[in-house]
Amino acid sequence: MITAAVLLIGDELLSGRTQDANLNYIANRCQERGIVLAECRVVPDTEDAIVEAIRALSARNTYVFTTGGIGSTHDDITAASVAKAFNKPLVVHPEALKLLEEYYGDNINDARRRMARAPEGAALHSKMVFQIENVFIMAGIPTVMQGMLDALLPVLQQDSPILSVTVKAYVLENELADELNELHLNTPKEVTIGSYPFGEAGKIKGTNLVARSRDAQKLAIVRDQLQALVDRKLG
Amino acid sequence: MITAAVLLIGDELLSGRTQDANLNYIANRCQERGIVLAECRVVPDTEDAIVEAIRALSARNTYVFTTGGIGSTHDDITAASVAKAFNKPLVVHPEALKLLEEYYGDNINDARRRMARAPEGAALHSKMVFQIENVFIMAGIPTVMQGMLDALLPVLQQDSPILSVTVKAYVLENELADELNELHLNTPKEVTIGSYPFGEAGKIKGTNLVARSRDAQKLAIVRDQLQALVDRKLG
Repeated sequence: MITAAVLLIGDELLSGRTQDANLNYIANRCQERGIVLAECRVVPDTEDAIVEAIRALSARNTYVFTTGGIGSTHDDITAASVAKAFNKPLVVHPEALKLLEEYYGDNINDARRRMARAPEGAALHSKMVFQIENVFIMAGIPTVMQGMLDALLPVLQQDSPILSVTVKAYVLENELADELNELHLNTPKEVTIGSYPFGEAGKIKGTNLVARSRDAQKLAIVRDQLQALVDRKLG
Repeated sequence: MITAAVLLIGDELLSGRTQDANLNYIANRCQERGIVLAECRVVPDTEDAIVEAIRALSARNTYVFTTGGIGSTHDDITAASVAKAFNKPLVVHPEALKLLEEYYGDNINDARRRMARAPEGAALHSKMVFQIENVFIMAGIPTVMQGMLDALLPVLQQDSPILSVTVKAYVLENELADELNELHLNTPKEVTIGSYPFGEAGKIKGTNLVARSRDAQKLAIVRDQLQALVDRKLG
């Protein structure tokens, strides 16, 4: 199984200043390419927190995607922290520096040159994504991150896409739960079922029943069973 | 220092089906009450993942807030997993059961009764929030979670609010970075500065400079310094 973890880096996510949009985008792209997104962590711009998370996530996933902390200011410490996590020095990546110098021309300055620093031995992918071991260092700005990830995905391993179907039921979860639990016990292990109430506090309107699988045929059978369960409740 | 961690529980967050809104809400409420939100994790509906995260987060934070997995279906395993994390059995909480029976009246059923299960020894707060050790178990639906958290916060410890100010600069981060790094070196440790580019890929328009502190006076000085830095660049 190909798995990935996401590490979102930035004080702004934990102070409430910024609503993250990167996890959801990465999650959807992984799903399409059959990569199981196994976990996500959000950490502040502090070296210890980043180092600990990188080590933990890298050790047990095929890939780790980081977002944020790659600019040129004092709070951009992702590259240095990832280097430390792997006990590597932070060095200037010659090819990255060349690209920055070509891109900025006469406007190159020290701050821009700092963005060419990477853990020693890092590989450089297109859109300036550095890879060290199984960790890919990406930007925090969503549209920039999306461009980086889209360019990166074709070079990563993939598997059969994880498909999902939703049966929207205007029935409360509590009224479906017993039958759903029974159906779940008889569902092949290749299909997972999730149950998600929709509506607002005090006005819950119903339940989205979501089945997921790489096996389209088994998924279709479970979808029909879920629909039949809902129809029985409503009929 | 009072710290908190957030644990978002649910396959739907890692499959991309659902865009989380809970972290941001909790982060803002913590900020207002002077609670430092130190970290967040997102895990699937699997016992091992929840148990590991609860143990890690509980050990090093004042509070842990979980969201999701508290319904009555097979994928709602938060209470059982938190119980396991603390080596407690999952039992029916008599007071919670009584509240559910009063609320549902004749419509009570086994599925609804299951929502009264909690780790042995759990405290019951208003809005049906269970607390075991320093962990608070909340709903995944944002409006429901918000009601729970708002009811809970007055009974938690608090500290001076963490204030923040933003200087919006139509200057690229790379062009501010050197001066900003210097300013940062001379900033009192009670004030942190963050630098956040805004705009889209290929059309980055400027930089939000954000200072945060519990000390309003020191914060105002740093805000003025940031504004002066930007004015020098633009003038």
